[in-house]
Amino acid sequence: MSEGTPIGAGPGSPARVLGVDPGLAVTGWAVIEAGTPRPRLVASGVLRTRAREERSVRLHAITEGIAARIATHAPREVAIEQQFVAENVRSAMAIGEARAAAMIAAAAAGLPVHTYAPTVVKESVAGYGGAPKEQVREMVVLELALAEAPSPLDVSDAIAIALTRLAEARFDARLRASGRP
Amino acid sequence: MSEGTPIGAGPGSPARVLGVDPGLAVTGWAVIEAGTPRPRLVASGVLRTRAREERSVRLHAITEGIAARIATHAPREVAIEQQFVAENVRSAMAIGEARAAAMIAAAAAGLPVHTYAPTVVKESVAGYGGAPKEQVREMVVLELALAEAPSPLDVSDAIAIALTRLAEARFDARLRASGRP
Repeated sequence: MSEGTPIGAGPGSPARVLGVDPGLAVTGWAVIEAGTPRPRLVASGVLRTRAREERSVRLHAITEGIAARIATHAPREVAIEQQFVAENVRSAMAIGEARAAAMIAAAAAGLPVHTYAPTVVKESVAGYGGAPKEQVREMVVLELALAEAPSPLDVSDAIAIALTRLAEARFDARLRASGRP
Repeated sequence: MSEGTPIGAGPGSPARVLGVDPGLAVTGWAVIEAGTPRPRLVASGVLRTRAREERSVRLHAITEGIAARIATHAPREVAIEQQFVAENVRSAMAIGEARAAAMIAAAAAGLPVHTYAPTVVKESVAGYGGAPKEQVREMVVLELALAEAPSPLDVSDAIAIALTRLAEARFDARLRASGRP
């Protein structure tokens, strides 16, 4: 199995991953496709919700927005950032709410969800778990050979999350190909 | 306007509230209808999800379960318990996730969501914000003249949350009827 082909990807059906950096106000998303010599950025953007809307309406909008991107770009898997650190209990609950909105859209489409802590994403993409977001963005630009830097940082974060999942899938595939469990 | 008729309730269309006590493993729910001399319990129960399922699948099951109760019992409003206290950041995020699953179902049905802290619910139903769940259950049994006590406690909590919303709506209606803003 070539390095650019994650588990389960057959000829003519390149593996696509939807990466999501969930937030109540701004949710970054990106669809990445496995490929050689490098993965390809299929589409990316942000979902924004308005602070004057009810929280339930904002969360529902995130679920609907992610569901629409899944319908359009047909990813096989969804990778979501899963923070475990928050300033306080209230902000932790808000983080959990936005994350749930994205997870529910994935589950509704029958897609597996992989979650990664921010430090894991930074380690995977920038080689250092404490890398600043700007450095993650630079590495994402290099990795995908992008003509310009994704903006805002929520988008480069979503790309990095998807790339982390692709890298993990390649690693799993290599382990499997080598006959180790 | 009679005391048993909340805002917006016309003849032949008694106001119904769906109360939800969200939890990843067990979500209590109850539909209450305004009425004189007392509100009526229309239906209640719990949604359970399996710990061996993916978290995204469990959250989606909560959304679907609440959506199904809304479709069956046609409440006008949804009242959800909103905790602001958690043991740690991780459990706070889990609380937020389950709450989001219920809120998303309400928003998808176009229903307004009211949230109440547990102390507010206890104050409203049992007259004391520090009341234990068993006492809340006793008061719920008296308030609705139930033949037997709801079980598990997630159900009596959900009933109490719905009753809190009904009481608030009655209070609002009385204020409005008196001409005060």
